[in-house]
Amino acid sequence: MKRTLGTCYYPEHWPEETWQDDARRMVAAGLTWVRIGEFAWSRLEPNPGEMTLGWMDRAIETLGQAGLKVVLGTPTATPPRWMLDRHTDMLAIDAQGNPRKFGSRRHYCFSHAGYLEESRRITRLLAERYGASPYVAAWQTDNEYGCHDTTLSYSAAARTGFRTWLRSQYADIDALNSAWGNVFWSMEYRSFDDIDLPNMTVTEANPSHTMAFRRYSSDMVVRFNQAQVEEIRPHSSAPISHNYMGRITDFDHFEVGKDLEIATWDSYPLGFLEDRVGATPEHQRMYAQQGDPDFQAFHHDLYRAVGRGRWWVMEQQPGPVNWAPYNPAPLPGMVRLWTWEAFAHGAEAVCYFRWRQAPFAQEQMHAGLLRPDGQDAPAMQEVAEMTRELADAPEVQPGTAPVALIFDYASEWAWSTQPHGAHLNYFGIVFDVYRALRRAGLSVDILPPTALDFSEYKVVLAPGLMTLGSELKAALENAPCTVLLGPRTNARTHDFRIPTPLPPDFADLDVTVSRVESLRPDMPRPLVGGGAVTGYIEELEGEVPTILHTQLGQPCAVAQGNRIYCSAILDDTGLDRLMIALCARSDLSYRAMPVGVRTRRCGSEEFWFNHTDKPVETDMGTLPPASVLRRTI
Amino acid sequence: MKRTLGTCYYPEHWPEETWQDDARRMVAAGLTWVRIGEFAWSRLEPNPGEMTLGWMDRAIETLGQAGLKVVLGTPTATPPRWMLDRHTDMLAIDAQGNPRKFGSRRHYCFSHAGYLEESRRITRLLAERYGASPYVAAWQTDNEYGCHDTTLSYSAAARTGFRTWLRSQYADIDALNSAWGNVFWSMEYRSFDDIDLPNMTVTEANPSHTMAFRRYSSDMVVRFNQAQVEEIRPHSSAPISHNYMGRITDFDHFEVGKDLEIATWDSYPLGFLEDRVGATPEHQRMYAQQGDPDFQAFHHDLYRAVGRGRWWVMEQQPGPVNWAPYNPAPLPGMVRLWTWEAFAHGAEAVCYFRWRQAPFAQEQMHAGLLRPDGQDAPAMQEVAEMTRELADAPEVQPGTAPVALIFDYASEWAWSTQPHGAHLNYFGIVFDVYRALRRAGLSVDILPPTALDFSEYKVVLAPGLMTLGSELKAALENAPCTVLLGPRTNARTHDFRIPTPLPPDFADLDVTVSRVESLRPDMPRPLVGGGAVTGYIEELEGEVPTILHTQLGQPCAVAQGNRIYCSAILDDTGLDRLMIALCARSDLSYRAMPVGVRTRRCGSEEFWFNHTDKPVETDMGTLPPASVLRRTI
Amino acid sequence: MKRTLGTCYYPEHWPEETWQDDARRMVAAGLTWVRIGEFAWSRLEPNPGEMTLGWMDRAIETLGQAGLKVVLGTPTATPPRWMLDRHTDMLAIDAQGNPRKFGSRRHYCFSHAGYLEESRRITRLLAERYGASPYVAAWQTDNEYGCHDTTLSYSAAARTGFRTWLRSQYADIDALNSAWGNVFWSMEYRSFDDIDLPNMTVTEANPSHTMAFRRYSSDMVVRFNQAQVEEIRPHSSAPISHNYMGRITDFDHFEVGKDLEIATWDSYPLGFLEDRVGATPEHQRMYAQQGDPDFQAFHHDLYRAVGRGRWWVMEQQPGPVNWAPYNPAPLPGMVRLWTWEAFAHGAEAVCYFRWRQAPFAQEQMHAGLLRPDGQDAPAMQEVAEMTRELADAPEVQPGTAPVALIFDYASEWAWSTQPHGAHLNYFGIVFDVYRALRRAGLSVDILPPTALDFSEYKVVLAPGLMTLGSELKAALENAPCTVLLGPRTNARTHDFRIPTPLPPDFADLDVTVSRVESLRPDMPRPLVGGGAVTGYIEELEGEVPTILHTQLGQPCAVAQGNRIYCSAILDDTGLDRLMIALCARSDLSYRAMPVGVRTRRCGSEEFWFNHTDKPVETDMGTLPPASVLRRTI
Ligand SMILES: [Zn+2]
Ligand SMILES: [Zn+2]
Ligand SMILES: [Zn+2]
Repeated sequence: MKRTLGTCYYPEHWPEETWQDDARRMVAAGLTWVRIGEFAWSRLEPNPGEMTLGWMDRAIETLGQAGLKVVLGTPTATPPRWMLDRHTDMLAIDAQGNPRKFGSRRHYCFSHAGYLEESRRITRLLAERYGASPYVAAWQTDNEYGCHDTTLSYSAAARTGFRTWLRSQYADIDALNSAWGNVFWSMEYRSFDDIDLPNMTVTEANPSHTMAFRRYSSDMVVRFNQAQVEEIRPHSSAPISHNYMGRITDFDHFEVGKDLEIATWDSYPLGFLEDRVGATPEHQRMYAQQGDPDFQAFHHDLYRAVGRGRWWVMEQQPGPVNWAPYNPAPLPGMVRLWTWEAFAHGAEAVCYFRWRQAPFAQEQMHAGLLRPDGQDAPAMQEVAEMTRELADAPEVQPGTAPVALIFDYASEWAWSTQPHGAHLNYFGIVFDVYRALRRAGLSVDILPPTALDFSEYKVVLAPGLMTLGSELKAALENAPCTVLLGPRTNARTHDFRIPTPLPPDFADLDVTVSRVESLRPDMPRPLVGGGAVTGYIEELEGEVPTILHTQLGQPCAVAQGNRIYCSAILDDTGLDRLMIALCARSDLSYRAMPVGVRTRRCGSEEFWFNHTDKPVETDMGTLPPASVLRRTI
Repeated sequence: MKRTLGTCYYPEHWPEETWQDDARRMVAAGLTWVRIGEFAWSRLEPNPGEMTLGWMDRAIETLGQAGLKVVLGTPTATPPRWMLDRHTDMLAIDAQGNPRKFGSRRHYCFSHAGYLEESRRITRLLAERYGASPYVAAWQTDNEYGCHDTTLSYSAAARTGFRTWLRSQYADIDALNSAWGNVFWSMEYRSFDDIDLPNMTVTEANPSHTMAFRRYSSDMVVRFNQAQVEEIRPHSSAPISHNYMGRITDFDHFEVGKDLEIATWDSYPLGFLEDRVGATPEHQRMYAQQGDPDFQAFHHDLYRAVGRGRWWVMEQQPGPVNWAPYNPAPLPGMVRLWTWEAFAHGAEAVCYFRWRQAPFAQEQMHAGLLRPDGQDAPAMQEVAEMTRELADAPEVQPGTAPVALIFDYASEWAWSTQPHGAHLNYFGIVFDVYRALRRAGLSVDILPPTALDFSEYKVVLAPGLMTLGSELKAALENAPCTVLLGPRTNARTHDFRIPTPLPPDFADLDVTVSRVESLRPDMPRPLVGGGAVTGYIEELEGEVPTILHTQLGQPCAVAQGNRIYCSAILDDTGLDRLMIALCARSDLSYRAMPVGVRTRRCGSEEFWFNHTDKPVETDMGTLPPASVLRRTI
Repeated sequence: MKRTLGTCYYPEHWPEETWQDDARRMVAAGLTWVRIGEFAWSRLEPNPGEMTLGWMDRAIETLGQAGLKVVLGTPTATPPRWMLDRHTDMLAIDAQGNPRKFGSRRHYCFSHAGYLEESRRITRLLAERYGASPYVAAWQTDNEYGCHDTTLSYSAAARTGFRTWLRSQYADIDALNSAWGNVFWSMEYRSFDDIDLPNMTVTEANPSHTMAFRRYSSDMVVRFNQAQVEEIRPHSSAPISHNYMGRITDFDHFEVGKDLEIATWDSYPLGFLEDRVGATPEHQRMYAQQGDPDFQAFHHDLYRAVGRGRWWVMEQQPGPVNWAPYNPAPLPGMVRLWTWEAFAHGAEAVCYFRWRQAPFAQEQMHAGLLRPDGQDAPAMQEVAEMTRELADAPEVQPGTAPVALIFDYASEWAWSTQPHGAHLNYFGIVFDVYRALRRAGLSVDILPPTALDFSEYKVVLAPGLMTLGSELKAALENAPCTVLLGPRTNARTHDFRIPTPLPPDFADLDVTVSRVESLRPDMPRPLVGGGAVTGYIEELEGEVPTILHTQLGQPCAVAQGNRIYCSAILDDTGLDRLMIALCARSDLSYRAMPVGVRTRRCGSEEFWFNHTDKPVETDMGTLPPASVLRRTI
């Protein structure tokens, strides 16, 4: 695999006479890819039905002739203003019942049939025109599905769609009433048309109701994306991608990804650390100009799974951004570090967002590779260095990691539907385990809940898998390797009920969760030997030997052969101890990483990254601040 | 009085074939009472007018035949979905103008005439059918009035009702304008029909307007409850009750209670500590698995007054609940402790909520006496112990405590209408005084503002009585015992004006409040001799000797004979000093309780409770953690 | 100039028989002015078109005959309830789309044409009747424009008005699209009628859109005020004023002030410290009973500029108020201190709000000069002292200060439209500089952005001037004195775009801002020599010598001749060092003030104020707590 670089470009933002020079500079910088078009609808169709594609023809021609490969985006994330005259009810409605109005982007409801048809229409027109272009080497559907909390909409269209979807799931209203336990609080419906969306209820809605709406809402994203794929495929053999975002969990990315050839994502390490990693202020200060050492890596591994091996960074932060609460500059070296990190996790390409900083509109404070006045911005120097380094780098083919970690969007919805403790969330639980694996020097594959073959792994971790299907359950029960389960494994059925026998109800694991407690975050329960339970613990019945327990004697991890059940949420020290136990049982060597240092293997290469702003001593020698070490193994 | 136990049961949740065994196990556990029916409307009347009461007949028969006494609830807290088709405008509207939709419970507006009539109808049908049942030994109206902030509704029905109510109060719009001072800011109305509800105003509404709406809203709860009582009474001689909640102060419980024979309440000590006690995080950590040492006791004493002596705990927490921010398990011993504590305060019965944990719907994480799989949950062991202990216990008749504390819902509304300091609230002020009385080892009677005869008490405390009628004022002026007043006693008229002469304007107490200050909570004003003023202080005129004053020389408590006026909000140390002074003037002995230990006398018995998780030395010897000591005196 | 005192009086609140005695007591207290009428509409016109002005005739007569001068307010801040029947759509709509209802005050939308006409009508009627009154010596339009966040309204009237305004600004929709960069995210409009207000968008609106709406909204306030002036002028030669508030920045006060003879403002030092100064809790505790030492001074200087030299305090806090989160009493001496402070900054008059505390409605907890029962409140003693002192005081004529500070409302909107760092705001930046000037013992003139002649000043400071017109830019470039610029000087065009060449693009200043960073507030970057950058820093290109730089070597202030560019937000120590450098370059002596002490020169007098609650040593000797020292220079 040849590793390549690219950038995101908006020809419609700049005078046509500058395009050629821009293209020339991109090529000179060593870039291969240029993504265009994803917000250009008002220029492609300024009036309903009036297509003005000439400029796009010329833009593609200019870029392609210069030697660049074009990724062409469908412009459906930004329907023009006139679309609202056609479809006055197409806006999403927020949970308080207010419309989310025109004036920025993503102003549509995934459930709206009329807009879905418009989205097909514009996609078809683009596919027909550019499907055979020699320069269009890949497609992108829409832009950042779910960003700005746009997956869930409480519109009339969503209500109608939800009813239809429920009918398809349950057929009979009595079946739904029974599955959801609607007898509780007299919530029984006499017809699917009685069912409203689960917002604005007096107190919490039935979790079965909420969970169904979460599943429905995810399906609507899948449907929307699928429709575009159906329009592009007949006209183009180029791969189709979508650019996902960081920590957007409201729809099932694996399901969307099934219809696409490539998964891409938009990586903004500094913005993410401030607004979504969920870190402590101390951690935020430590990595303010570097980003969290694991957050990007997690998403690299996640989207490699979503793309079934093929994935890119479509938008790489090249300097300060505009949208986080605070927007510092990356330390010198970080743009290069982030780029190599993506390649270390198997990326095919890394594209920088954006080529030239816009001097207008919402993102005018978002750095690009060029300043608004066209001068090189600081990142350009690191891009040049990347280009030089890639020229010398070997072709690699990423293999399989020794450790697998299951990530399941439905479990995320389940935890958020009923967290029990206000601070608990599935993403955090899985990410904490991921971080512990990285502190142990391990490379990780993330797997979807549809993964059933674990034969290549030494360990499979499935933390917090609150709801799971019978196939995955059987696969985990039969896995030949070490398996880590808990907490809350199999705690809810598909319909969001507590199953009987009580969870986890796993073969060859004599563990029953007899009671659960959520704990104040300021009341950790210390473990014997170091570490602590934080926020959640289960009481267990059964005869499985304890491997970790609290100072009060309550087990928080038990193990039977190569099956480990962790019945609590542990702090980092506790998780490190759990990973040591896991490695010991799995023929894996535990390599304790220095603070802020991470390593990853990719094919024949091993990478070491120093995410701190200080030099750090490692087994590979001293790593300078914000640096990458590459070696062949 | 024979003390009994019971539980809450939902036959409609379980297969009919399990009812008999459930009933048998209840009896075997020593339970006397079983409450049923309060959420069952969709099973009693699945379609409008189609009654299906057969299952209820059989459930009552099965439970009664097994030896249990049934408390039958009216199901009006959960009208079925079809009710909204009949009365599309029956939902409550929140203060921001949004409907509070169907999908959970309490989805109705107390002002809605149509729903009031439906509530009468279903109650009448149940009363007619079961009023003469030998097994129905008590009734419950609705469920937890006011829970989930459902007392105040800003609906069209409420607006219409409020106008009618105002007309009945003031007769003439000019009288209202004058009483409210509507000349201020040109708020004068020309007709009662001009008056809107006091929400969504540009800045705060006229406090007279807000206060009137608070009084009206409380009256609507009284009316709603009264209507059910009117339907039950002709058909049944069994006592009628309602299950109140903890710290719901939006309606006047004493007024509702006047129409009922028994007051019951729902006691969830761990959930309350997290979500409504108002404790510091330190206090919340200390009692996370025990609950606040005084919060339940306060409500026991309050509802004893509401029930005019007859009261129960209708729902007692038996394990972790589902609805607080964090939901730990009670320490072993606490279920027993809470049960004995209720009896120590004169309860007739304590019922555990609920029999078997539901594996579905909103409360699937709420522990019961049985687990979802039907096994005994940990609380069952403590219930068994209670049953054994009650068998040996004497019959008792609770008497009068030496100390009376007045609690007045209207004063709560007055403080919240105009707190002056953002953190000030009446409940907190009264509860702090109550806690200080308990730290002094005193048993307390809580009295309504309609209490006029204080002849049996050594002390009457009336802290924070911001608004009071002339009868209570006269009764306090003439009380033969020690009386504690202030702060803000008589600070507002019924119409919410500052009276002239300035407050408190009490006979035989030469005190005038000439100015008030609210203080930042982080700026306590230390007292000479220990303790501090926190948050609020009044400047006094008059010749009454000071008993407590700040280091700046400002009096905060003055006393003339057996009249004490406390002109500030004091911290715990300050309150302890005030209680010592109070006891000294009232022939009461002050018994300083160890931290977390409380005592109460009930008839011939004295109880000691250790609410901590450590053994504590007391005058009665060492109390183990989470333990009860009972002795005859 | 003769300095005078006054008060605010509401004859309509009190029995007519008390007016004469009230007037007599005002005169006896030494008061000259009495403001009346500004909330009296429901008494002036109780029914639509039915004028009842007799009582107002008698009130003016009574007050005037007693020797008082009347300031007559137009009552438009409180339209009566019947106005809403006439104009059902006149209410403002908040950013979430909800009406801001009747029931308090300021319940109107500035864009509403119908209400604007009503406002003209009532103003005309008053002007016709009282324009020639010998007792009406001044007018006040409305009351506290913009208070309670009432400048911005998202009503239908505002939307229509905004479209019309945009048409007048841009003429052609393509011009607007181009100016705003609406090609970004396909936000292009085909007609002005497509443009909505910039609220409730999915993510942030185009900052050009937001900024235009801010400019429009300010213009509507100017228009509203202008209309009243147009009605009064033909009938009266008395000066017209408006009473502005503290830190209301949503409309351009300079623009409103152009149509008025006098600027007045309402000074509530204790309330402001709690709810709008933006101080730390530590600072709030230190000055809880004195108010911030600079906040009032800043507004005195600001409104002196708004009034083009003529300004008053129209409402001076005389005791605890009712509306802040916490409302303590001022320290003894503070009412006098605040009064002298206003005179030290050139006030013509100081009026106390209010005469007698109202025992009803929203402000019943707001102290007056009299208590609700008519007794003197504590402030009366300090008013008496003021009266004695003023009798002996010389006539003064305020001159020009040595230092000018530009305050620009449009820059405030620009920073809030796009702060980049969540905590950054223009008011805070300017106010911090103002405070540093005051710590240096300097008297300051605040100037509007229309000031072009700086010849009388030694220094002009223009911090944070994010957007500025070409005239001011040229004037600053050509200023003969020292000029302090930055950060973000000239960072945006009028249409809210980044200009090219990049900012600041100032003549004779070789500085280019090549990149900006916003920083976490908990990550100060220390300076070499003391102080720190907090929250924001720019990277500079150019050859200008550095005068302050961080420990990492990054410049944060550079200076070329008498031009200083400050490229960061500095903490107080950093600002003090900047002021020392500024004074050194400008022939100004830097006088370091003791903590909490401030000085000001006014004409021939120099004042020293001790804002602390302790005695402080100064060059003038020991200042007692909360005291004023006056001396002739
Ligand atoms: Zn449509
Ligand atoms: Zn109805
Ligand atoms: Zn109108």
